[in-house]
Amino acid sequence: MQYPYRPVFTLFYEGKIRKKTIKFNNMAKEVTKREENYSQWYDNLVVKADLAERSAVRGCMVIKPYGYAIWEKMQHILDGMFKETGVKNAYFPLFIPKSFLSREAEHVEGFAKECAVVTHHRLMANPDGPGVVVDPDAKLEEELVVRPTSETIIWSTYKNWIKSWRDLPILCNQWCNVVRWEMRTRLFLRTAEFLWQEGHTAHATAQEAYEEAERMVGVYAKFARETMALPVVVGHKSPNERFAGALDTMTIEALMQDGKALQAGTSHFLGQNFAKSFDVTFTNKEGKQEYVWASSWGVSTRLMGALIMAHGDDNGLVLPPALAPIQVVMVPIYKTDEEREAVLDKLYSMKKTLEAKGHSVEVDDRDTLRPGFKFAEWELKGVPVRLAVGPRDLQNGTVEVHRRDTLEKVTEPIEGLEDRIIDLLDDIQKSIYNKALAFRDASIRKVDTWEEFKVEIEKGGFLLCHWDGTAETEQRIQEETKATIRCIPVDSAVCMEEGTCVYSGKPSHQRVLFARAY
Amino acid sequence: MQYPYRPVFTLFYEGKIRKKTIKFNNMAKEVTKREENYSQWYDNLVVKADLAERSAVRGCMVIKPYGYAIWEKMQHILDGMFKETGVKNAYFPLFIPKSFLSREAEHVEGFAKECAVVTHHRLMANPDGPGVVVDPDAKLEEELVVRPTSETIIWSTYKNWIKSWRDLPILCNQWCNVVRWEMRTRLFLRTAEFLWQEGHTAHATAQEAYEEAERMVGVYAKFARETMALPVVVGHKSPNERFAGALDTMTIEALMQDGKALQAGTSHFLGQNFAKSFDVTFTNKEGKQEYVWASSWGVSTRLMGALIMAHGDDNGLVLPPALAPIQVVMVPIYKTDEEREAVLDKLYSMKKTLEAKGHSVEVDDRDTLRPGFKFAEWELKGVPVRLAVGPRDLQNGTVEVHRRDTLEKVTEPIEGLEDRIIDLLDDIQKSIYNKALAFRDASIRKVDTWEEFKVEIEKGGFLLCHWDGTAETEQRIQEETKATIRCIPVDSAVCMEEGTCVYSGKPSHQRVLFARAY
Repeated sequence: MQYPYRPVFTLFYEGKIRKKTIKFNNMAKEVTKREENYSQWYDNLVVKADLAERSAVRGCMVIKPYGYAIWEKMQHILDGMFKETGVKNAYFPLFIPKSFLSREAEHVEGFAKECAVVTHHRLMANPDGPGVVVDPDAKLEEELVVRPTSETIIWSTYKNWIKSWRDLPILCNQWCNVVRWEMRTRLFLRTAEFLWQEGHTAHATAQEAYEEAERMVGVYAKFARETMALPVVVGHKSPNERFAGALDTMTIEALMQDGKALQAGTSHFLGQNFAKSFDVTFTNKEGKQEYVWASSWGVSTRLMGALIMAHGDDNGLVLPPALAPIQVVMVPIYKTDEEREAVLDKLYSMKKTLEAKGHSVEVDDRDTLRPGFKFAEWELKGVPVRLAVGPRDLQNGTVEVHRRDTLEKVTEPIEGLEDRIIDLLDDIQKSIYNKALAFRDASIRKVDTWEEFKVEIEKGGFLLCHWDGTAETEQRIQEETKATIRCIPVDSAVCMEEGTCVYSGKPSHQRVLFARAY
Repeated sequence: MQYPYRPVFTLFYEGKIRKKTIKFNNMAKEVTKREENYSQWYDNLVVKADLAERSAVRGCMVIKPYGYAIWEKMQHILDGMFKETGVKNAYFPLFIPKSFLSREAEHVEGFAKECAVVTHHRLMANPDGPGVVVDPDAKLEEELVVRPTSETIIWSTYKNWIKSWRDLPILCNQWCNVVRWEMRTRLFLRTAEFLWQEGHTAHATAQEAYEEAERMVGVYAKFARETMALPVVVGHKSPNERFAGALDTMTIEALMQDGKALQAGTSHFLGQNFAKSFDVTFTNKEGKQEYVWASSWGVSTRLMGALIMAHGDDNGLVLPPALAPIQVVMVPIYKTDEEREAVLDKLYSMKKTLEAKGHSVEVDDRDTLRPGFKFAEWELKGVPVRLAVGPRDLQNGTVEVHRRDTLEKVTEPIEGLEDRIIDLLDDIQKSIYNKALAFRDASIRKVDTWEEFKVEIEKGGFLLCHWDGTAETEQRIQEETKATIRCIPVDSAVCMEEGTCVYSGKPSHQRVLFARAY
């Protein structure tokens, strides 16, 4: 008996491909100016550009399709870079037994504090009224914590995967959601639940594990610079800024337009701490038992915040072409229906050619909105290139080309445009990076006295100062100025010099990077 | 001041690309025979083929790299099919306020029962000893449920997105984890936490929403048939097998080798139920307020279970080339180091050519294992094509080609192999489907008497029977035979005929599909 079941299929899938239409939910598009109130500008922009919004659940966000499309591009590119180095994806449980968190002393200090705790596994009809209540008979023997990070559950798993040196290295990454209970949250920058990737590697030697941590901070730096157009500073965290349980934490630090730093990604050398906590040993080539060496590394949806704050302007988002869900938007100019049809025909054919070259293109054919309104909307959404074509352009064979980053507008021949677009997008990607690089470099200053420090830190930016290496000094500086050590830059050429601590006056062997941070 | 920061990067990333090596964790590869014990065969295979394993957390699984690579391929292909129909990805919160679940009466019945309930947001050092305990002061005002499915949180969000008919349709999908507390779990088939995709669409008319549900079950059917090589039956669920809150549930039903059915994906027409529960209305073109119409649809990591059980054999997995992480594996045969080098040179160059054609290829150059052992291992892992090349082959210009699905082995000229591989993979994909199709069609029988039903159901497979349409009869049949109505097939040609109910003898207007199921 044959069951082709084509009816449903042809009838409803192949038969009725839906014509995609463009829709926005909020029509009031005014965004606060950055000068007036930078943080309000950010909050406004995230919502008005349809990137994300607060949800009904305290501290949790809804990532809207336009925002998620950017995150998907980030994921796709990073995932490819990870795999190129031999990393494979896997998936580990959302829940962590409470006791696991206590195994690694510093780790529990860092993460057991504010977390979501699952205590029951059933609801029941409310005996005293409507709705449902927790069923007291369904209490868990041991509470489960929603993962704030997965070292503990993963190392308890690795214990069964690792017997000999032949099983090493293990290089796993997972894309998932994590929860850290935050009292004061901001969309993308600090939310109770966020999306991220966490890599967890196991190695036979300390050097291999350390090199892995360095390799991955290198991947993050390359991604930030080439894809996000963020000129990040790479360095090591000071001991008390390290990840809970790490022997060394490397970071990429980005500078936002308000002069505050943003930690955009971290990579940790964990030594044998987690191997010891979960008793993970291996037989080395000499037949001796040794504890396994570890690294872990991660970036999160916080990168979205960095992207917005580093490049956006008072008109809205400025997206690097490498991450723009729509790279080129086309707006038809017309009065009559005949003009509309003629112009749209031209735009659709141009769209075909550009898409064939791998660009993502949108034709804004909404008939109910004026071109000026559309222009503002696409600027708000940060689309790198906008093309406008009207009846006169058709006659003259011209097109109006507008680039989002500089807001420059030029009229060019349509002839050969498809090829020039490639160079234009490439140029936009570079210019956005160079603009951010110039801004960053202009805001890195060497500061040598405490008086100067207190004045300069108010102006924002990175201060390169000598530090005596003590946690006390670091603490005092933070208390007095809210500035923290963002990192000890790896570029030793610039920092490795003798001097005296900007705060204590004690001897120092290198400069470190101070800033106020998100 | 310039900060190129290339040092780290060139030194540790570009400089030291790791040579990928193949590793397996368990060396005892014997799998129980299907005849002996089918369900043990399945449990064995999942673990021994390195697809997944149980975790330290009750009911939660660890999806291992090899298993996750298959899931990633499923995600990639499905995601493309969704987007082709205009669906966009987004992300909604992991947590759902307890009260939301109560809003839709049937929904709470179906999902509030067994779920993970978050009651506190902090742990504290144990005052009476080591470890940490729940901080009683950190009790949540309202408990949060870890999403078992997201209709409620999503419709509470859609309320703010929808004002007028212009905002419709909304077509969102999310790839995420969900939790349904299960007492008896099995890897991939039934776990407390699992990964899935859930689409949630909002429409202005009932017809649009219904067509959307049909369109998506069509996408699932196309994916199951063309990618997974599963000849699924498409149909409607009987009323009491519907999704909690749906007016109609469509399903794709697959048949496993033990004669039991497996529900592989469902698509629901939700009517206005959730719009009414969350008061989501829109202004229609006539300016009147109306409730919004909805559909939702999902497939999960359960598909992994279907893939394994439908195609695997006593030697291990049989993967359709479209989903195989490794499509072609090459095993060198040699005695001396010279032979090894010569053979590997040849294999690496063949690998290059095949990868250039878009195939995923692995050369098994492990020097510590015998070819026979490698053969068994790659058969266990279901790699579609295995090539073996030895010194004599090099002389004769031949290669031994082994196909996993039929276990056939032929020696062919190496000349032109790269082109023949494409056809071979294509042929394997088709044969796997046709074998499953023949098995399914052979096990669909029309049964017209209750005596016959009780005998036939013991033999497994699908029984096409008349049913009087009452829940009572459905219930009794299940109690007496453990058989359920898998679906009312959409292929009306086969089922639309007058008859009498196989159980009650009452009049019936069409046949439905009965089976025992996973």
